[in-house]
Amino acid sequence: MGPTKYVYFFGGGEAEGRGDQKELLGGKGAGLAEMTRLGIPVPPGFTISTEACLEYYERDHAWAEGLAEQVIEGVRRVEALMDASFGDEERPLLFSVRSGARASMPGMMDTVLNIGLNDRTVQGLVARTGNRRFAFDAYRRLVTMYGDVVLEVPHDHFEAEINSLKSRRKVRSDTELSDEDLERLVRIFKRTVVQVTGRPFPEDPHEQLRKAVNAVFESWHNKRAIEYRRLQSLPDNWGTAVNVQAMVFGNLGETSGSGVAFTRNPATGDNHLYGEYLPNAQGEDVVAGTRDPMSIDSLNDRHPALYKQLQEIRGKLEGHYRDMQDVEFTVQDGKLFMLQTRSGKRTGAAAVRIAMDMVREGKIDVETALLRVDPKQLEQLLHPMIDPKVVYQADAKGLPASPGAAVGKVVFTAEDAKEMAEKGEKVILVRPETSPEDIGGMHAAEGILTCRGGMTSHAAVVARGMGKPCVAGVANVVVNLESGELSVGDRKILRGQVISLNGTTGEIVLRELPLVDPEQAGAFGQFMDWADERRRLRVRANADTPEDARRARKLGAEGIGLCRTEHMFFGADRLPHMRAVILARTEAERRRGLERLLPMQREDFIDIFRAMDGFPVTIRLLDPPLHEFLPKQEELIHKIAEVQFAITKAASLSEIDKLAGELNCWRDLLARVESLHELNPMLGHRGCRLGISFPEIYDMQARAIFEAARKVADRGVVVIPEIMIPLVGDVRELEFVEKRVRAIAEAVLVDDAIAFKVGTMIEVPRAALTADEIGAVAEFFSFGTNDLTQMTFGFSRDDAGPFLAAYEQRGVMKSDPFQSIDERGVGQLMKMAISKGRSAKPNLKIGICGEHGGDPQSVAFCHHAGTDYVSCSPFRVPIARLAAAQAVIRERKS
Amino acid sequence: MGPTKYVYFFGGGEAEGRGDQKELLGGKGAGLAEMTRLGIPVPPGFTISTEACLEYYERDHAWAEGLAEQVIEGVRRVEALMDASFGDEERPLLFSVRSGARASMPGMMDTVLNIGLNDRTVQGLVARTGNRRFAFDAYRRLVTMYGDVVLEVPHDHFEAEINSLKSRRKVRSDTELSDEDLERLVRIFKRTVVQVTGRPFPEDPHEQLRKAVNAVFESWHNKRAIEYRRLQSLPDNWGTAVNVQAMVFGNLGETSGSGVAFTRNPATGDNHLYGEYLPNAQGEDVVAGTRDPMSIDSLNDRHPALYKQLQEIRGKLEGHYRDMQDVEFTVQDGKLFMLQTRSGKRTGAAAVRIAMDMVREGKIDVETALLRVDPKQLEQLLHPMIDPKVVYQADAKGLPASPGAAVGKVVFTAEDAKEMAEKGEKVILVRPETSPEDIGGMHAAEGILTCRGGMTSHAAVVARGMGKPCVAGVANVVVNLESGELSVGDRKILRGQVISLNGTTGEIVLRELPLVDPEQAGAFGQFMDWADERRRLRVRANADTPEDARRARKLGAEGIGLCRTEHMFFGADRLPHMRAVILARTEAERRRGLERLLPMQREDFIDIFRAMDGFPVTIRLLDPPLHEFLPKQEELIHKIAEVQFAITKAASLSEIDKLAGELNCWRDLLARVESLHELNPMLGHRGCRLGISFPEIYDMQARAIFEAARKVADRGVVVIPEIMIPLVGDVRELEFVEKRVRAIAEAVLVDDAIAFKVGTMIEVPRAALTADEIGAVAEFFSFGTNDLTQMTFGFSRDDAGPFLAAYEQRGVMKSDPFQSIDERGVGQLMKMAISKGRSAKPNLKIGICGEHGGDPQSVAFCHHAGTDYVSCSPFRVPIARLAAAQAVIRERKS
Repeated sequence: MGPTKYVYFFGGGEAEGRGDQKELLGGKGAGLAEMTRLGIPVPPGFTISTEACLEYYERDHAWAEGLAEQVIEGVRRVEALMDASFGDEERPLLFSVRSGARASMPGMMDTVLNIGLNDRTVQGLVARTGNRRFAFDAYRRLVTMYGDVVLEVPHDHFEAEINSLKSRRKVRSDTELSDEDLERLVRIFKRTVVQVTGRPFPEDPHEQLRKAVNAVFESWHNKRAIEYRRLQSLPDNWGTAVNVQAMVFGNLGETSGSGVAFTRNPATGDNHLYGEYLPNAQGEDVVAGTRDPMSIDSLNDRHPALYKQLQEIRGKLEGHYRDMQDVEFTVQDGKLFMLQTRSGKRTGAAAVRIAMDMVREGKIDVETALLRVDPKQLEQLLHPMIDPKVVYQADAKGLPASPGAAVGKVVFTAEDAKEMAEKGEKVILVRPETSPEDIGGMHAAEGILTCRGGMTSHAAVVARGMGKPCVAGVANVVVNLESGELSVGDRKILRGQVISLNGTTGEIVLRELPLVDPEQAGAFGQFMDWADERRRLRVRANADTPEDARRARKLGAEGIGLCRTEHMFFGADRLPHMRAVILARTEAERRRGLERLLPMQREDFIDIFRAMDGFPVTIRLLDPPLHEFLPKQEELIHKIAEVQFAITKAASLSEIDKLAGELNCWRDLLARVESLHELNPMLGHRGCRLGISFPEIYDMQARAIFEAARKVADRGVVVIPEIMIPLVGDVRELEFVEKRVRAIAEAVLVDDAIAFKVGTMIEVPRAALTADEIGAVAEFFSFGTNDLTQMTFGFSRDDAGPFLAAYEQRGVMKSDPFQSIDERGVGQLMKMAISKGRSAKPNLKIGICGEHGGDPQSVAFCHHAGTDYVSCSPFRVPIARLAAAQAVIRERKS
Repeated sequence: MGPTKYVYFFGGGEAEGRGDQKELLGGKGAGLAEMTRLGIPVPPGFTISTEACLEYYERDHAWAEGLAEQVIEGVRRVEALMDASFGDEERPLLFSVRSGARASMPGMMDTVLNIGLNDRTVQGLVARTGNRRFAFDAYRRLVTMYGDVVLEVPHDHFEAEINSLKSRRKVRSDTELSDEDLERLVRIFKRTVVQVTGRPFPEDPHEQLRKAVNAVFESWHNKRAIEYRRLQSLPDNWGTAVNVQAMVFGNLGETSGSGVAFTRNPATGDNHLYGEYLPNAQGEDVVAGTRDPMSIDSLNDRHPALYKQLQEIRGKLEGHYRDMQDVEFTVQDGKLFMLQTRSGKRTGAAAVRIAMDMVREGKIDVETALLRVDPKQLEQLLHPMIDPKVVYQADAKGLPASPGAAVGKVVFTAEDAKEMAEKGEKVILVRPETSPEDIGGMHAAEGILTCRGGMTSHAAVVARGMGKPCVAGVANVVVNLESGELSVGDRKILRGQVISLNGTTGEIVLRELPLVDPEQAGAFGQFMDWADERRRLRVRANADTPEDARRARKLGAEGIGLCRTEHMFFGADRLPHMRAVILARTEAERRRGLERLLPMQREDFIDIFRAMDGFPVTIRLLDPPLHEFLPKQEELIHKIAEVQFAITKAASLSEIDKLAGELNCWRDLLARVESLHELNPMLGHRGCRLGISFPEIYDMQARAIFEAARKVADRGVVVIPEIMIPLVGDVRELEFVEKRVRAIAEAVLVDDAIAFKVGTMIEVPRAALTADEIGAVAEFFSFGTNDLTQMTFGFSRDDAGPFLAAYEQRGVMKSDPFQSIDERGVGQLMKMAISKGRSAKPNLKIGICGEHGGDPQSVAFCHHAGTDYVSCSPFRVPIARLAAAQAVIRERKS
């Protein structure tokens, strides 16, 4: 066996590497090899493998055995093809040295260009190009880039020198400097290198190359790259490949230039070459945006041959990769060189359209098309967004809590939101955090901004359910409710001023931005049909109102997996009755309040059942702690002080009497609020614990459900109610409630025409642990993965922000368990519950209704774990449908 | 096969039943049968089995087939022995009809005496006894008892009639009524029966008997009995036996009487007959306490033969049962009849002494002796108690949160407690609830009373740790801190008034009661040695101070299983530094605060290590959320208002300046307190989450531990520190902290002379679920079963009071999972963690340090689950030692 092969040559239509060797050659290296094999013009060069990088670290920053020889051989082969020689004074060959990891890490690692220039070879470049200015510009770029990257001379040293020269020359731009100025700069920069490092700039091209390669190896472990990998959950042990490639120059005059292009439009998916071209420029100039590039279409007029060649390459690449490509190219003296190809990023709409077009073009099959679209991207197809043509800078950034964009006037209370909205104003509701009492205001608002809270805060969950954009947990934004001000850094925004939110990115902009409705790809329905034909999991929606239910159905929901009944109690006509129920001193009083709520609750269900005709509707009985329905303590203390003050000003005894009566009422209310105060309400008196303490509340809800079911069934609607008991941890809790619910069903339904089920949430760890007992009683399980995650980790999602931030910073926790199901812990409990539950009842219906139901990774987990369905907010239903189909396809393929 | 046997006869020295048939015959029936077999005089009779009772319910309140015939045969056999006949006018036989379940349910079910009396047989009784008054007294008792129990005539009807007659006769007591009056009462009562029920009182003795038996059957399901079984966790499906027994009378004159006795002293265990005798009285009169009984010893003087016979019976019973018996007897005309025998209840001291004496007497072996003492009773041996001779009535009752009794003056703040205690006053600290800041005051107080909180509230846990009596969660007690008043119902107690607490029973008495130090049975040490020789589990103590550590060692602890370091930060000299740490704006500032804490913390550990020389000391790094170390929000708002007011009154500009500075400080503090506010602190920023956010805090603690260890080791102390990381849910959390701790150990310890371990609490469900990963890093596990129970059930122990009360009331939850480990749920997680942990590290050391470590049932669970040790508060160490021994013995026997 010879020495390990570390260097993979490409050029002249041949390549030692292949496109499928991304792990070994990195994405860039694999692309260069593959393009070369396809006969596409690529400057020759070689890729030093990731194995060489790993070996470099293994050997404590020394090159692997044989690497030096293989590099020399690579240089030799490039020289042979380029009719030039590395270090040659007359026909100098220059190299670029670029990083290239398995996955794209844009700008995170280092690059050195123009390797091979020194005081002698630069003269050869001058002679060969006839362009002294170009040659010394390239040379001074080498010195700064090499100085910065390899020699660690702080970049501002060079900046300072160039600025000093420009001010002496009284010019503003680098381009106004003369050839001599650039030559002088090279001398000055080299002096700087000596001053800072104590050594001269290396004139030896091979030393330059060797150290540049080392610098790229080292950059795998620079701070930026480590941070980026942490954020993207990429492993640290991949290493990077290094691409050493003959330099080509787009800045040799008007017949040269650089461009970037997509083989199809990445925004719309339109099947045309799409991109930009900048004449007489290097690649960096196109990206930097300092000059306005021309569109690639206009290239057709100015350089038709070039355009034609690009089109041919486009055909070749798409024919080969069977996917839309993102390419970089340079034209040197009229000759086209491709420098990079990779799969192109695209919008959701473009992703769907490209996938479908490629099926029609025969490039890919339906299943590949389904895998080509990231389910999360579908969300973009459903929400308005900020006009992508507008360039803007965010004034603040929070969590992208609910996607889409919104523009409107700032208001600080739910009341205000409702009033302004009634007058036809568009408003953004800004709150420190939201509570169930704000629901009406959230509904009236275009978007919601909260200073606190995370991705699963009340605001985020409700906003996603409503399909409203929401930005949550913004660190440097403070709401002062008293003064009616929003502070963003130093800037103050008053009520009524217009701001824009981008819930997809978490950005906040303190002015009005234009919005556009996203194009829904025409064939979207067809695409989703393909997905539906393949998935095993059913997809339901979490919907609390008839409006939500209708929207969910339109988006493909096959029933409601979670209808929260508590939201029904916050309406202005209901809250007083609900409060009467809570404040009741006797069961009889409580029943009177409940009787007044019964007909309203019944009407809610009637409309929802109608909207879901033919589909099951899972209704969760009252879940939140009672204090959520009462005013806040501070509010009451304030009110009491007001009335006390009014008493001191009262004009008559009768007025005092009246006020004193009022005062007592407020005080009673305050006492009750205080008595309901809990230290840890998440683990307090809520869910079925309420239903067991005050059985008459659940009785009323069960009655309302069955009466509504009977009423709509009488009119021909197919109604399938599923009554869900929350927060069960022991089978006896379920039994207690289940018996009463069945008794009421028996009394109300009279005959068996309506099939209903009684089941339970599995959201307390103990419920999962004892699912065999619970499964013997429940007719279905629905995982409440929000609470299950909270209790399994012992994290309160409202309070986890500060320490989860520290965890991320210190690399202790790589992914947020509130986003995707924690498979090791929470998932283990879920699997246990499924297997124990079905051991008790083989055909037990099992679903999930936490926020995870709309997360593709979690949907895939549910598919494998064997749930029957997932349920998510209406706007996430298409995501779940696609994710469920992908899970099936991937399972089949693996 | 003949008909099922339902009736078991006993009498004349023979019995069909046996003493080991408690399930079939009930405790009383089995005892009567066994005594009869032993030749002890027992009035003849028969027991109707519990099967007959169950069958009665099965057949919808009808007698089982053959029962009627068997009862008639039973009556016949009694008649034959008694020389009397049921319903006979001349020699009438009377029966008592008594309930008797498998376990004693004192007073819960019904009894009817004197069955067989009617207008004709009463004349026979008059003739036979020559005592007309006695006969009619028995008759009128039958009518009221039967009327009440069988016919459901409310008792107050009879009361009203008797009172009306007494007032007409102008007498006060029943005994002052004449024979004629009693005869007249019978007539009046019978008229009442007709008026209320519409039917005459049954004259037929057999009808009386049949219906009395039915009434006893029915009483198994009366409200009282159901409630009692719920409280005692007894099943509902046992049913009761019915004992039908010939009546004997202790009220036939001075040669008759009734008594109760214990075969040994139930308070001290002293080996002498102990009891009371009341001449010319029925059994009820002894129990009612209306007349003063004589001691059984004085019987020796007055009725030596009787005394001798009792002593013989005592010997027979103890020889047979090999346990101390509690007996009832009646003397009729000088003839002794035993009516009941059962194992006698006894104090902890008596239990130990009797068990040891019986070993010495050769009656039982050591293992039986160990099983004879309820481990919980040992607690009585360690705490002062209210003088058992004093009769008192509780003014309020709460939860028996920490055993023992205390008497002292009421104070409402920890400060006040400390000041008063310094002056030598005994005080009771009364708080709505306690927080870590109250520790000093709790220490200074004799006992603690809190209005809120449960058995595992802060007050309860800390009090048990300190061995102080505590009563918690008292419903009708309200503390008004502002007015300085304690309201107990309508009564107000001011600061300085003396009250008494009984933490063993939860009773509160609003006056001074005398206390006694419990007798520690002399042989206690020997008894515990026996236990220690047999147990497999090690027993450690939870101890935070050197004082606790010394006490724990004295009580037999083999190390410290939980040393909470946070309590060390609440001292007056430390709190300011801790606050500086929390308020620090930079890491450097934080480090400065920590440096000041380091030497103090080191001293704490030095003293504890010395006290535990040779034993392991498990030290838990900081656990509670930081806000616990800061003042309360309300306190700060109040303070700020004060300073603001002072500013308006300030006399000079410089004074204003000073006050304004102060104001800013308070406001900063308030802002920090508000920013640390959490919605669910239990699931918030605490435990290792603090150690990861602020690693310098744990660094300081680790340094203090290792420096202390080195210091004491240098002086020859054998120190075995075990550093325990709290609230770990993911192995990466543990790794992060563990690495830093080891790095500090390496720096401080220099050589390997000190063996230390780094391990983790298992208290988050996810830790148990991923114990294989965690076990690969941790060197030991310690189950924090308090938090594990909270998170597994989703119960906040601080908030669970209201709904757990409802659960108990509605029979949804039979036992409190904070008292004994919930084996189905929490226990399942523990077993999983043990097996997964040991799969990663076979010799992983595993313990438990939650409150459950001192609960006998939970100790037995730990024994079976395979932990290496349990750790509990010092005063519970003997309990755990005995419970661990019992677990071994029971395992061996089964």
